[in-house]
Amino acid sequence: MAYNLLKGKRGIITGALDENSIAWKVAEKAVEEGATIVLTNAPIAMRMGEIRKLAEKTNAQIIPADATSTEELSQLFLQSQEILGGKIDFLLHSIGMSVNIRKNISYTESNYDYFLKGIDVSALSFHKMMSVARKLDAMNEWGSIVALTYMAAQRTYPFYTDMADIKAMLESIARSFGYHYGLEKKVRVNTVSQSPTKTTAGTGIKGFGDFFDYANAIAPLGNATAEDCANYCITLFSDLTKMVTMQNLFHDGGYSSTGVSMEVMTKLGVE
Amino acid sequence: MAYNLLKGKRGIITGALDENSIAWKVAEKAVEEGATIVLTNAPIAMRMGEIRKLAEKTNAQIIPADATSTEELSQLFLQSQEILGGKIDFLLHSIGMSVNIRKNISYTESNYDYFLKGIDVSALSFHKMMSVARKLDAMNEWGSIVALTYMAAQRTYPFYTDMADIKAMLESIARSFGYHYGLEKKVRVNTVSQSPTKTTAGTGIKGFGDFFDYANAIAPLGNATAEDCANYCITLFSDLTKMVTMQNLFHDGGYSSTGVSMEVMTKLGVE
Amino acid sequence: MAYNLLKGKRGIITGALDENSIAWKVAEKAVEEGATIVLTNAPIAMRMGEIRKLAEKTNAQIIPADATSTEELSQLFLQSQEILGGKIDFLLHSIGMSVNIRKNISYTESNYDYFLKGIDVSALSFHKMMSVARKLDAMNEWGSIVALTYMAAQRTYPFYTDMADIKAMLESIARSFGYHYGLEKKVRVNTVSQSPTKTTAGTGIKGFGDFFDYANAIAPLGNATAEDCANYCITLFSDLTKMVTMQNLFHDGGYSSTGVSMEVMTKLGVE
Amino acid sequence: MAYNLLKGKRGIITGALDENSIAWKVAEKAVEEGATIVLTNAPIAMRMGEIRKLAEKTNAQIIPADATSTEELSQLFLQSQEILGGKIDFLLHSIGMSVNIRKNISYTESNYDYFLKGIDVSALSFHKMMSVARKLDAMNEWGSIVALTYMAAQRTYPFYTDMADIKAMLESIARSFGYHYGLEKKVRVNTVSQSPTKTTAGTGIKGFGDFFDYANAIAPLGNATAEDCANYCITLFSDLTKMVTMQNLFHDGGYSSTGVSMEVMTKLGVE
Repeated sequence: MAYNLLKGKRGIITGALDENSIAWKVAEKAVEEGATIVLTNAPIAMRMGEIRKLAEKTNAQIIPADATSTEELSQLFLQSQEILGGKIDFLLHSIGMSVNIRKNISYTESNYDYFLKGIDVSALSFHKMMSVARKLDAMNEWGSIVALTYMAAQRTYPFYTDMADIKAMLESIARSFGYHYGLEKKVRVNTVSQSPTKTTAGTGIKGFGDFFDYANAIAPLGNATAEDCANYCITLFSDLTKMVTMQNLFHDGGYSSTGVSMEVMTKLGVE
Repeated sequence: MAYNLLKGKRGIITGALDENSIAWKVAEKAVEEGATIVLTNAPIAMRMGEIRKLAEKTNAQIIPADATSTEELSQLFLQSQEILGGKIDFLLHSIGMSVNIRKNISYTESNYDYFLKGIDVSALSFHKMMSVARKLDAMNEWGSIVALTYMAAQRTYPFYTDMADIKAMLESIARSFGYHYGLEKKVRVNTVSQSPTKTTAGTGIKGFGDFFDYANAIAPLGNATAEDCANYCITLFSDLTKMVTMQNLFHDGGYSSTGVSMEVMTKLGVE
Repeated sequence: MAYNLLKGKRGIITGALDENSIAWKVAEKAVEEGATIVLTNAPIAMRMGEIRKLAEKTNAQIIPADATSTEELSQLFLQSQEILGGKIDFLLHSIGMSVNIRKNISYTESNYDYFLKGIDVSALSFHKMMSVARKLDAMNEWGSIVALTYMAAQRTYPFYTDMADIKAMLESIARSFGYHYGLEKKVRVNTVSQSPTKTTAGTGIKGFGDFFDYANAIAPLGNATAEDCANYCITLFSDLTKMVTMQNLFHDGGYSSTGVSMEVMTKLGVE
Repeated sequence: MAYNLLKGKRGIITGALDENSIAWKVAEKAVEEGATIVLTNAPIAMRMGEIRKLAEKTNAQIIPADATSTEELSQLFLQSQEILGGKIDFLLHSIGMSVNIRKNISYTESNYDYFLKGIDVSALSFHKMMSVARKLDAMNEWGSIVALTYMAAQRTYPFYTDMADIKAMLESIARSFGYHYGLEKKVRVNTVSQSPTKTTAGTGIKGFGDFFDYANAIAPLGNATAEDCANYCITLFSDLTKMVTMQNLFHDGGYSSTGVSMEVMTKLGVE
């Protein structure tokens, strides 16, 4: 069911890898809700992904861009405005990559070149996007920017290693940039802290897949799916949430506010 | 502009006193978005208020109910279901009253009978409503319950006196009840922590009106209005936010995440 | 090992029921650290408890006082000053009681008279103590007040029922009163959010005892004991923490900042 | 007045630049409290600073070390153990540097090489220190590690620019590493979020000095001084706080929990 919540709005969606991606679902929903969009991903991710299928489905053009390069990001915003016929109304940042996780390096022995790479790709890329957009004056007033994050930024999940610290920085960037962008252009910036989600990226984290069931047993509503998350992002892109900014918003079926559930207590042999 | 976000949904709106009330705006928006609603308020508030005007405008019936009485609340839910023709989908709790504030009693010298009265009216009423609704099985699955609160629950605002502590309890009740209601019936429960708002109730708090300008100068987007808040509540009542529960959601133009603004620094004679 | 951290200081310790009580350990440590103290408890708790043993051990007098009665609290502060020979330097609030828990009433069906009773005994008593102390000017400048609380104020633990909401209020009272008391008399007010502890009170909560093991398996340092907590309280009463106020301080071996531990993952059959 | 709280303990103190430094005060206090210490700083900071004066006063040796170099940090821990005659009991991380701030570059136009440099120096250095210490098994069980941070990690202060995001990462590293170090060696890791302090570093931030007065007018106890902070750190290094870990502890005279003070309201022309 669609509401035309994003009718006439123009958006840029990063990070759609395949149909399990949250970004994929956001792209679909945004178009269903009346938006026109541009898709973007790193050239390498595009080769692996099935983004072209999504582009067809959403009638969107794809602009490859390395999110660590301000030049490529400038091109992204310039071309997107040309393609979409005006300034951008919403932007989804869904980019996260930890070489330390990929290489299964334990947190205490993190490689620092990999750590810095992870920061650059996963957190500074968010700052860069907004900095470039601002410099080009590419966002409409009351535009909305959302980045996806995870609660490891607040509490330790051993398997999440350096990505926890990187997400903490990402959330801080949302606040810091959100202040300036709000003041200057009424653009709002938030992060959505999503349940563990069975995306291709999530599944890549050792133990994360297994953790899925635990979180599901804690959250009274269960884990939020990628599709649920897309619905929520739509509300944040809409005109109905204009005054929400600089927030980290938990979208997790109640997980973050549940200390322990009866279900988990029972599983642990407690009555 | 309306989206039919609440098409076919049935709601109960408490606390609409006059057209400055947030609840008043929520009622209007909810109906614009396709909902049918029942209005309720304390008998005494109804005499003072102009709720009948709102009832006409929103084609809603009014059911007076003392929110501290589980019996009257039972009647409220029973009659609402009859009038609206089915179970309830959303509920707004917008009830707050501190005798200590009304009588201008300083926080450190709070009268405890008044304090307990404030708790009963402003916080336990929220528990009672949900308890009654649950007992009567009056809410639809995936129903949404929102209570309005204020950031004094997290940080001290001297003029807010005992209402700060009461709002802290209210927010906790949202989490506590939200756990159970989510588990049993998928009903979600959240609080919206709103900017200082020029309602009749807000204006009644000494210094609150004055504080309005300060908050407005801190928040990069300025203070959120009652109408903005209503829009936000609509998204929380909609099917697009099904997995958001047990959260306290700041709706304040960025105030809560801003330590200090350049504007306030300048006002204070700082460059 | 003692350091004379509280040398010459005068304190009032509430809530020492038996040698499992946190307050009991605080009393012992405070005296070891050079303080002179007065013990107080509700008359009924005193009959059940072994407080006289503690009084002997700590060379302390006992002043029975109903913590819901401002008159009895006034007597407590007046007599304490007489006995100890001067104004009070530190105060421990360790009072919590929920009739709903005692009677094993589920949260959603809380009895509201019991709820209000719990609030009065467990939260407003804290306000009353400080209000009385302030009115009598019974605290020394830079005095320190600590109340014990539990993390259920932030996240739901189903078995903790209405005490969660009451602790949320207690923590808010610490902030609210701490503002005024700090401004006027430099008195600081904090809450310590302690691990589940095998006290007589804790054990009385159904499931709480069982939950103990779960929390112990989450916290990287394990659960903090009553004795650990006493040590921590001593630092908060000392002159070394003069600028810490209006804080809720987690004392829990890292539990509050740990999302999940490898140990719990393993117990749940996850590798 | 000294208590022998750190009698027999061995510590490493980073970041003592001159007598306004918090680290300077911590070093003095630690020695007064019975510890033996090693001082360290970056070679370049040592040339500017007066650290030799402190070394004499505290009977400490100085080991220059670039905190971004794991090799130099390894040497630091190896030599410190030799000099002090055993494993390390406590460690203060007081290292922060933002080239973007130094060059007065606005946040939205941050230079990313500088940003990464700031991250490496100010946040990853903390990870590196702990990683090296762990690899060398250089910390005693129940050792205590503290890093200094600032509340800009939670709320935006425009003048703090990229250091806000870097401090958010630093605090996350404390949690993440604290989990592992706690589990393996009972070492606890915390951050202290200190009031704006008139250090040489603080004064270097444009507007920070001016902001000092604002914060002082908000905090009911006023801003905490460097000396106050040192006292607090001593308690965190002592055996009395063994179960406090993975926490960010506000040490700010109540600032963080105060929304607005009457004093600021008055200054703004509000009555």
